[in-house]
Amino acid sequence: MSDQFSRTRRNVDSNSLTQALCSGSRRALARAITFAESTRADHRQLVDDMLLRLRERSPVGDGANRATLRIGVSGAPGVGKSTLIEALGLAAISAGRRLAVLAVDPSSSLSGGSILGDKTRMPELSRHEAAFVRPSPAGTTLGGVTRRTRESIVFCEAAGFDLIVVETVGVGQSEVSVAGMTDLFVLLLSPGGGDELQGIKRGIMELTDIALVTKADGELNAAAGRAASECANALRLMRPRSSHWRAVVQTCSALTGAGIADALQVMFDYERTMRDCSELEARRRAQASEWLRSEITEQLMSRFTADSEVQQAWRELDEQVRRGEMPASDAAQTIIAGFLRDSSSQQANDKLKQ
Amino acid sequence: MSDQFSRTRRNVDSNSLTQALCSGSRRALARAITFAESTRADHRQLVDDMLLRLRERSPVGDGANRATLRIGVSGAPGVGKSTLIEALGLAAISAGRRLAVLAVDPSSSLSGGSILGDKTRMPELSRHEAAFVRPSPAGTTLGGVTRRTRESIVFCEAAGFDLIVVETVGVGQSEVSVAGMTDLFVLLLSPGGGDELQGIKRGIMELTDIALVTKADGELNAAAGRAASECANALRLMRPRSSHWRAVVQTCSALTGAGIADALQVMFDYERTMRDCSELEARRRAQASEWLRSEITEQLMSRFTADSEVQQAWRELDEQVRRGEMPASDAAQTIIAGFLRDSSSQQANDKLKQ
Repeated sequence: MSDQFSRTRRNVDSNSLTQALCSGSRRALARAITFAESTRADHRQLVDDMLLRLRERSPVGDGANRATLRIGVSGAPGVGKSTLIEALGLAAISAGRRLAVLAVDPSSSLSGGSILGDKTRMPELSRHEAAFVRPSPAGTTLGGVTRRTRESIVFCEAAGFDLIVVETVGVGQSEVSVAGMTDLFVLLLSPGGGDELQGIKRGIMELTDIALVTKADGELNAAAGRAASECANALRLMRPRSSHWRAVVQTCSALTGAGIADALQVMFDYERTMRDCSELEARRRAQASEWLRSEITEQLMSRFTADSEVQQAWRELDEQVRRGEMPASDAAQTIIAGFLRDSSSQQANDKLKQ
Repeated sequence: MSDQFSRTRRNVDSNSLTQALCSGSRRALARAITFAESTRADHRQLVDDMLLRLRERSPVGDGANRATLRIGVSGAPGVGKSTLIEALGLAAISAGRRLAVLAVDPSSSLSGGSILGDKTRMPELSRHEAAFVRPSPAGTTLGGVTRRTRESIVFCEAAGFDLIVVETVGVGQSEVSVAGMTDLFVLLLSPGGGDELQGIKRGIMELTDIALVTKADGELNAAAGRAASECANALRLMRPRSSHWRAVVQTCSALTGAGIADALQVMFDYERTMRDCSELEARRRAQASEWLRSEITEQLMSRFTADSEVQQAWRELDEQVRRGEMPASDAAQTIIAGFLRDSSSQQANDKLKQ
């Protein structure tokens, strides 16, 4: 297959897929995200082509003018993330919005997936015409996950979804990544109170625009109220993330529906406030900057690991490191020096051929 | 200051610090870890020198022959990690071991630190002569955290500690990193049961050698027993990590001391079993391999970001990406191509000078 042919075919594919995506095809959206999740070089190229085409269609690109809101939702395991996102999502759809839910799952690096699987999560939302729910992909690297999540967000927006929820699990680096690719960061807390707050790092609290205490119903209602007060106290001690928005804490229950409409209203208030003061635009610019940073890491590492001389040197020195004959830092230095020499002579050859 | 002088000074420092470390000086150990946590180039060089000196003193290097055991301990926030590590640690010291506790905290990337701080954790253990407790450092990147934790482990072993506990928070990528640098992975579960297990990913369960259900006392005792059964059932469905060891589940209480001696005994059984079948050695070799991988990522990225032409190109293209005039992937490609050309001509210049 000639390079010319594959290039032509690729262009046809990326063109028609982009058109189908922009006409709102769910099938096209699902395929586009699958390509974004792939590590195959031709799939990566297809995704890059699609992103360029989308930029041509909307020259200001990633600006906040598209009137979409990117919401990061995080919380410890067991806090009830899926249940609450479903309740909030159905309410948002009733208010005329179209909702996409993406999951960032940095913990499934071995065989992937939670024990119970993700098939039964958000059953009502998954079936709804105005919603698109993408279950957790089996992850490889955290960097890879964040790149494809950013791309998936752009694809969802192109397909006409105007509320994009990026859900992440756990208390760790993934919150920081997710906060760096969204406009609004929502932290979910369970009514446990003290114990819960202890485990949540100051850095995560500082990222929080809205905190919701879940399961505020029945016998947990009082505890939820106390947890909300504790959280509000903790937030008061922190430097606010924005000069236009003070973090809001509310209680709610996906079971009884109490507080769901209020929580959604706070999100919409946030959206209007931040759009009016142009801070939404500023956050989009910061997201673009973060995207560039993670693109650089991904691309540099993938060029490095694809290099055949690197692979050979790595194999050889890995043996020595495993046997304890060479420190890892020395071996790394040698392999990197070889790569930088190698890529230079490769570029010199390319120049001679031109 | 001439290069010659700084080199000499450095050698003196790394030599005397290594000697003090190997004589068991706690002050030297604390300083060595502080250097490992530093990002200053001269500190990095000092740490590399020390690692080389330690290797010269013990030529087989990182082999399992040193009779140390590296234990990764993980669990969700609020499970009682510190309390249990203190109870297990004091019991291990009574059994004649010397214990070091290191914390890997991937979540403190902004201002760092948990809300309550780490000063009051493990008060008894911190004061004990046979223990060394290093509180959570304020993190930068996950990669950086894992590199310095690996180095800190080696320093603790050189200072005569033979049980090294690496504690990590949350359910995320950090467990996988910690499991990749330890011989034994211990997962802590709270008596909550169902909810708890749901949140813990299959990948984390597969890494688990020993699972301990905490807070098995008073009115939570029955729930702890049920959680242990559920966890044992879940583990039975999984591919075991080793052909010589089946994951063990136990309940224990740091409050009453129930199950603490048993839990410690299981760890020692594990240590003997895995040492006898040489799997401990195999895990050390795998740890060395993982270390090389993370060293490569760290070094390649730090060479890249230190390059002045990269910095300039990055600044310029970042502006375009922020304004939406260029996709992040294109900008990344341009900056990387410049770096690879640049480093090649730099190497050519170096050759001419020789």
